[in-house]
Amino acid sequence: MTSRSLADGILFTDQYQLTMSQIYFRMGLHEHEAHFEHYFRRYPDYGSHQAGFCIAAGLESLLDWMQSSRVTDADIEALRSQVDSTGRRVFDEDFLVWLRANGSFDSLSLRSMPEGRVVHANAPFTVVTGPLAVAQILETSLLNHLNFETLIATKAARVCEASRGRPVLEFGLRRSAGKGANAAARAALIGGAAASSNVGMSHVMGVQPKGTHAHSMVQVFMSLGEGELGAFRAYADVYPDDCLLLVDTIDTLKSGIPHAITVFDELRSKGHEPVGIRLDSGDLAYLAIQSAAMLNEAGYNNTSIVLSSSLDELVIFQILSQIDHEAPRYGIDPGRLIGRLVLGVGSKLATSDGQPYLDGVYKLMALRPMAGEAWVPAIKVSETPAKTPNPGDKDVVRVYDNRGRSTADVMVAKDSDFGHPDSGESGFGSAKTVELRHPIQPHSRRTLRHSEVSEIEPLLVDVLVEGTRVDEPVGLETFAARREADIERLDPGVRRLVNPHRYHVSLTSELWDLKQRLVAEARSQSA
Amino acid sequence: MTSRSLADGILFTDQYQLTMSQIYFRMGLHEHEAHFEHYFRRYPDYGSHQAGFCIAAGLESLLDWMQSSRVTDADIEALRSQVDSTGRRVFDEDFLVWLRANGSFDSLSLRSMPEGRVVHANAPFTVVTGPLAVAQILETSLLNHLNFETLIATKAARVCEASRGRPVLEFGLRRSAGKGANAAARAALIGGAAASSNVGMSHVMGVQPKGTHAHSMVQVFMSLGEGELGAFRAYADVYPDDCLLLVDTIDTLKSGIPHAITVFDELRSKGHEPVGIRLDSGDLAYLAIQSAAMLNEAGYNNTSIVLSSSLDELVIFQILSQIDHEAPRYGIDPGRLIGRLVLGVGSKLATSDGQPYLDGVYKLMALRPMAGEAWVPAIKVSETPAKTPNPGDKDVVRVYDNRGRSTADVMVAKDSDFGHPDSGESGFGSAKTVELRHPIQPHSRRTLRHSEVSEIEPLLVDVLVEGTRVDEPVGLETFAARREADIERLDPGVRRLVNPHRYHVSLTSELWDLKQRLVAEARSQSA
Repeated sequence: MTSRSLADGILFTDQYQLTMSQIYFRMGLHEHEAHFEHYFRRYPDYGSHQAGFCIAAGLESLLDWMQSSRVTDADIEALRSQVDSTGRRVFDEDFLVWLRANGSFDSLSLRSMPEGRVVHANAPFTVVTGPLAVAQILETSLLNHLNFETLIATKAARVCEASRGRPVLEFGLRRSAGKGANAAARAALIGGAAASSNVGMSHVMGVQPKGTHAHSMVQVFMSLGEGELGAFRAYADVYPDDCLLLVDTIDTLKSGIPHAITVFDELRSKGHEPVGIRLDSGDLAYLAIQSAAMLNEAGYNNTSIVLSSSLDELVIFQILSQIDHEAPRYGIDPGRLIGRLVLGVGSKLATSDGQPYLDGVYKLMALRPMAGEAWVPAIKVSETPAKTPNPGDKDVVRVYDNRGRSTADVMVAKDSDFGHPDSGESGFGSAKTVELRHPIQPHSRRTLRHSEVSEIEPLLVDVLVEGTRVDEPVGLETFAARREADIERLDPGVRRLVNPHRYHVSLTSELWDLKQRLVAEARSQSA
Repeated sequence: MTSRSLADGILFTDQYQLTMSQIYFRMGLHEHEAHFEHYFRRYPDYGSHQAGFCIAAGLESLLDWMQSSRVTDADIEALRSQVDSTGRRVFDEDFLVWLRANGSFDSLSLRSMPEGRVVHANAPFTVVTGPLAVAQILETSLLNHLNFETLIATKAARVCEASRGRPVLEFGLRRSAGKGANAAARAALIGGAAASSNVGMSHVMGVQPKGTHAHSMVQVFMSLGEGELGAFRAYADVYPDDCLLLVDTIDTLKSGIPHAITVFDELRSKGHEPVGIRLDSGDLAYLAIQSAAMLNEAGYNNTSIVLSSSLDELVIFQILSQIDHEAPRYGIDPGRLIGRLVLGVGSKLATSDGQPYLDGVYKLMALRPMAGEAWVPAIKVSETPAKTPNPGDKDVVRVYDNRGRSTADVMVAKDSDFGHPDSGESGFGSAKTVELRHPIQPHSRRTLRHSEVSEIEPLLVDVLVEGTRVDEPVGLETFAARREADIERLDPGVRRLVNPHRYHVSLTSELWDLKQRLVAEARSQSA
């Protein structure tokens, strides 16, 4: 087996990126300046429910990869060994010499939505400019990193929304996609999870990993004849100030909770306060209420109750709703019970169950022979209109209404008045109104008036300028602040877990007209 | 940011494995010999369709990780920094000293289903024996590797089944889970994909990566004024003997195919034979038929037609069925058309769309204070009967009927006559019949007669003996041979893509009785 490092470096890409690069090299186009845009076309649709927005994630992971990946001798050796169906070498020596010298991302510039921010379908998410061949090779890995982490951060934000601010713990390592589990843990933290069970990745992210014990520990003490009570006592003995017991190995209400209370009493008598219990099977709403009643009765009114077992946002929503309605019948205050819950979410978060991939794409939008010349816009015409990209060298701005709520993300030409920093405080330039066009439907228009707009915010941030990092790397607190601010400024309808309201992503008339002209020109080239 | 290597080594595990290990250490149990079993409880259920069997994969990746992962000073430093909610250190120094000296998998033994073989729900897939604390730490990573690769190998086998032996190409890198994309490519090859677009991982696996060009290359030539035809000519110029053209950038039938035929004619006039076309949007069944008609008309009866765009096993099944019925209306022989198809399958394969995780678990089955003493079976009683494991130190055998078809996987006690190598040719020992019990349903029994059995095959193979690799690593040809032989020996009903027949996984009466006794004993410990 060849060294696995081949699979983690610059060859973490699709074969066609390299075959195309060789064509560009052969035709003298490889150093033409290209403008690629990355965006996703559809919000995740989980079948019974759908996302109305996404949370951007994956940028730092991508930048790490870009900055550490450059073509090595081993990579060149591998490419030299490739042959086509007739046994001829796929890559010629002159191309490999060029690739060995130029196969890094030091020549690329990159603008992007910052991690943690709300990002919408069809709005530019990342813009890459630089030499055509190198920007092409980047495509696969850029999509891989941003698609997956954004997908998981979005799922995490939904789980947190359903959890009403209670802590969410990411537990998915054992069922996620190989080393992709680390990206999942990172993205879950960006999307709002309070912590993860993944030890290594938690340390990388600067967060304390979370976890207590499994059923197997209770089984060990049972097979030694010391039973569940013996297991709980051992746990309390080693972790007297952090005692959280898993109570469903035998029978939650008949065995687990009574044994936990016995051990909690013993802890208290020694001056330690127990932390709580975890429920991992059965009817979690019912068991949470009954457990709370038993714990309250025994004088443990504030111990945590951790719930886990196939949770996702809808299951959590249902469990909390059921507690709202059912708890009072058992003399339990639902608000106080919910206030002591912690949600452990595993497989369905780490794999985005129901919609396990985001359909992000990376499309050529413009090309020019060299920097300084005019951009020539590029088009692709799809038989599916939603797959026709929005061409041109452009920016994207977010428009806020008079309530301070975001009301549209608008793509604007680079030299447009609208949203330009020099267009006066309003961002409208000389105009009083701006006409917004739906990217696909020709009859869907919206007139935006100066008087109904409180702010116009450019969204993309410079991250790399010709390979040099120009933004400040930030930590989880910053991601959280961005996420919370952006979600707060969404219309509640867009935040809804099921059947959310559709957020407006629009083109200016200018870009709409450009798109129509290019589509017509492309069609006229048909045979 | 702490070095990412922390996230790839032995701390690629759940926090609770470490907190439990410290308890075992503190209680003097950490070197008790444990017997853990890994198995999955349910076949993947994709919603509209379900798997009737899985293809084992992930073992070699797991072994690579196990053999390269041992506790480092950086790992110890990270664990030393962990504190509980009261600010006290989680891990004491004496435990960390022990972990630094013993934190590797050199003391474990492992038996497993070989990669590429058919494996069934609830049958032991992997058995790990060794010191309790170390075997516990292994759990998370073992599950991660085997769950995910088995999930993807299974999906690939289904896609291949639907593709009627035509080559399947794995294209999912851009939408799969970060570095998990490499595991997905590997597993897809084990499950039957002919090749992958993933350059690095293809080299690691010793397979030529596949890919030609994207829409972006056509866009480049369009924006330079040379159009789709210019792009196709450039491609043919650089790859004259490997010319496969993507024909849907503008309009497949009006532009792409006519331009491709022009370039194919030019190639032939220079003595090169074109390879084919790729269709990536629109109605693929209709476009395949029309493209074949146009290519045939132009004298290209054998060029490949690659189909891609949101394919999975059901979509492929439908496309091929539609070609069967519709092609003759256009004068196209459906068998010949299908015989030139290649299927490019991306996101839905690499993420196992519809069921993105396998629910594999790792359960303590038996424990003994030291090697040589008797095993004490371990039990966990779940409120969901399917979650109660099948206890004891045991083996698993596959029983073949008189047609040579596999008819049941049977769990047998280690010292049982049935299926034992010394039990005579039949494997029945002194008995004429053996009673098989359903693992959960008490009234579901089956009597297996000596006369109806052609072979009894032990399934698990020794892989590690106290950390030393004892099997021979093999390549893709061996995986393919195992997979093809095992699938061929399945009942056709079990192979069905939708609503497959349920394969029997059973316990001997002896193991059934043991399970019932242990469940009763555990329940009697309830308060």
